[in-house]
Amino acid sequence: MTSTLDAQAPSEGRRELLTVDCDVHPHVPGGLSGLIRYMSHDWRQRLGAGHEQGWAKDVYASQFSIPRNVLYVNPVGVMRRDAVPEDGSVPCSDPRVVAAQLLDPFGIDRAILIGGNVLGLGGLPDADLAAVIASAYNDWMSEHWLQVDERFRGALVVAPQDAGLAVAEIERVADRPGIAQVHLPLMNVLMGERHFHPIYAAAAERGLPISIHPNSADGIFAKAPALAGGVFTYYLEWHTALTQIAQSNVISLVCQGVFERFPGLKIVIAEGGFAWLPDVMWRLDKDWHSVRAEVPWLKRLPSEYILEHVRFTTQPFIEDVAPEHVQAICEIVRAEQTLLFSSDYPHWDFDNPKLALNLLPPATRERVFGGTAAELYGSRL
Amino acid sequence: MTSTLDAQAPSEGRRELLTVDCDVHPHVPGGLSGLIRYMSHDWRQRLGAGHEQGWAKDVYASQFSIPRNVLYVNPVGVMRRDAVPEDGSVPCSDPRVVAAQLLDPFGIDRAILIGGNVLGLGGLPDADLAAVIASAYNDWMSEHWLQVDERFRGALVVAPQDAGLAVAEIERVADRPGIAQVHLPLMNVLMGERHFHPIYAAAAERGLPISIHPNSADGIFAKAPALAGGVFTYYLEWHTALTQIAQSNVISLVCQGVFERFPGLKIVIAEGGFAWLPDVMWRLDKDWHSVRAEVPWLKRLPSEYILEHVRFTTQPFIEDVAPEHVQAICEIVRAEQTLLFSSDYPHWDFDNPKLALNLLPPATRERVFGGTAAELYGSRL
Repeated sequence: MTSTLDAQAPSEGRRELLTVDCDVHPHVPGGLSGLIRYMSHDWRQRLGAGHEQGWAKDVYASQFSIPRNVLYVNPVGVMRRDAVPEDGSVPCSDPRVVAAQLLDPFGIDRAILIGGNVLGLGGLPDADLAAVIASAYNDWMSEHWLQVDERFRGALVVAPQDAGLAVAEIERVADRPGIAQVHLPLMNVLMGERHFHPIYAAAAERGLPISIHPNSADGIFAKAPALAGGVFTYYLEWHTALTQIAQSNVISLVCQGVFERFPGLKIVIAEGGFAWLPDVMWRLDKDWHSVRAEVPWLKRLPSEYILEHVRFTTQPFIEDVAPEHVQAICEIVRAEQTLLFSSDYPHWDFDNPKLALNLLPPATRERVFGGTAAELYGSRL
Repeated sequence: MTSTLDAQAPSEGRRELLTVDCDVHPHVPGGLSGLIRYMSHDWRQRLGAGHEQGWAKDVYASQFSIPRNVLYVNPVGVMRRDAVPEDGSVPCSDPRVVAAQLLDPFGIDRAILIGGNVLGLGGLPDADLAAVIASAYNDWMSEHWLQVDERFRGALVVAPQDAGLAVAEIERVADRPGIAQVHLPLMNVLMGERHFHPIYAAAAERGLPISIHPNSADGIFAKAPALAGGVFTYYLEWHTALTQIAQSNVISLVCQGVFERFPGLKIVIAEGGFAWLPDVMWRLDKDWHSVRAEVPWLKRLPSEYILEHVRFTTQPFIEDVAPEHVQAICEIVRAEQTLLFSSDYPHWDFDNPKLALNLLPPATRERVFGGTAAELYGSRL
């Protein structure tokens, strides 16, 4: 299965641009069981590996999983059908297939990998186990992706439960070839809290942005971040509201003064939307004028920290809306400065790089497709 | 203290318009203790009334309170200083003062009262007690406000914990003079859930919109609705993010099919913002095209239900933003159809009716100041 996705529009000279896809999800075949061989003997045993046969086959240990949302069912599936290989293997699990289906036909020069299996890692109660899984994933990603095609760049994943272990993982992995970002699966602690500050120090020191992403456990697992107001019933509700996690964390990072403590820190909000940003920036700035005594460490308008330090991936980009309204929102959020193109391959609501963002002025598109990413990732790109 | 608030701009012929202020907060002097005399002997005793003297003065019963946020401190206070009467009494507790300070000078023809003390009622664990407090508040509001000045209209409050008791309270109070709305303090159950449907049936049958409002207990009290992602530290964070509760409940109402079940039902989102609406409408509509099999009762685009059934009060209105961006957001949310003017008197971030909304076209302003409210409340206005 190496056919290209349908590309209905002409490529319009995209080859001349640097095109960076900032949200591609590699999957480990077999999920957690595919990571077992990267773990120590003791951890393998603790997770029930080797008990797959015989009487233990159906007991809990051998079915242990990384938290992921399986209660909200998307009736059309969360993977593009044409991204499912003909042999039935896991979508986006083979870098050669992804190169042939995504990178080559769409002229993507760099793809940032955010592990599809480990998005919900923050929902695990066991901090040590979460850190072991993160390490195993990072080793798998290096071996299976970063060493195979030079166009891939990896977000090394850290477990958020124990900041010390997360820093140790950054130290272990950050200097490997192809590492360009630290991915932080979220737990039910807001990102501005001091719990996370050692992680920010380690990332900023190495020029690694921190990414977050809807973590597949949002609003379902007790230790994962919840959505506002109650618990949703349907996928449609959850998938509409999940931007709230990004809203809260941007608010928290700014107000807690994280960007004053770590002036070099950059945050990437992957798949958390951006059309809510006008409201959040405006409310923060308005209230700050009145209540800034509460947060005396803020030296500038809250929105200025966001515009300088936070970047937002574009998928799913606004569509089926009046062009002048898309343009107005992109102006307010300073699209040329804050947005990073992403396809979200291989997910169902993939944005086609040849069709997406066509409403934006050419100079803005060039920034969103690659210019801003080049600045953000620097020599790591 | 009957001086007018500062009115810097000319009134620009506002007298010819119907002006409706859809979010004014009367306060019961003494809070819960001011409502005690509207309760039965048994309930008075249960709450410790009469124990204010002697040894029992400092025990819990006599300090029992309706949940309200006292953990996030606004350093400039949450009441306008010029709304605090010179005798130190509670702001917005005397209808004559409010008439002289708000209604007369600003030419407000009608003010919808949403009780300031009972916003957090949904956070109370005891459903019976919450219902008793709601009844006492409604009796106090009738006696002290609706019978005193014909320009006041009341939102009768119901306790959300027990839908049967809420319906009984609507039946008891709805036909009193001046009642124009049902106010629903929120609990940690989303508004689309079947728990609330009997309340919607009773309200829709009587042509009463249902209002919600940030409930003073958001994100702090365990049974009140929480904000997304974790627990905030500062007022600035909480006050920026509190729109999430409105976002979630609008999503829930639409997706659960409430507006198909109750075609006459109208919802008023008071002080929940509206500049987040472009993002929520767009995400709902986009996803609905794909996953509508999940919610087969929806016959139209999700955004169409919002535009028809949900209204948003304007305060705090967007300001200090480029005029063309305010106008774009107001176009997207169809301001002329969805927005209701509110001052939020006597709160700190009051919007002055003579200054607010000046960026909108005159026909839109006329709708927002009164036309939409006239349609919404009909003969009850």
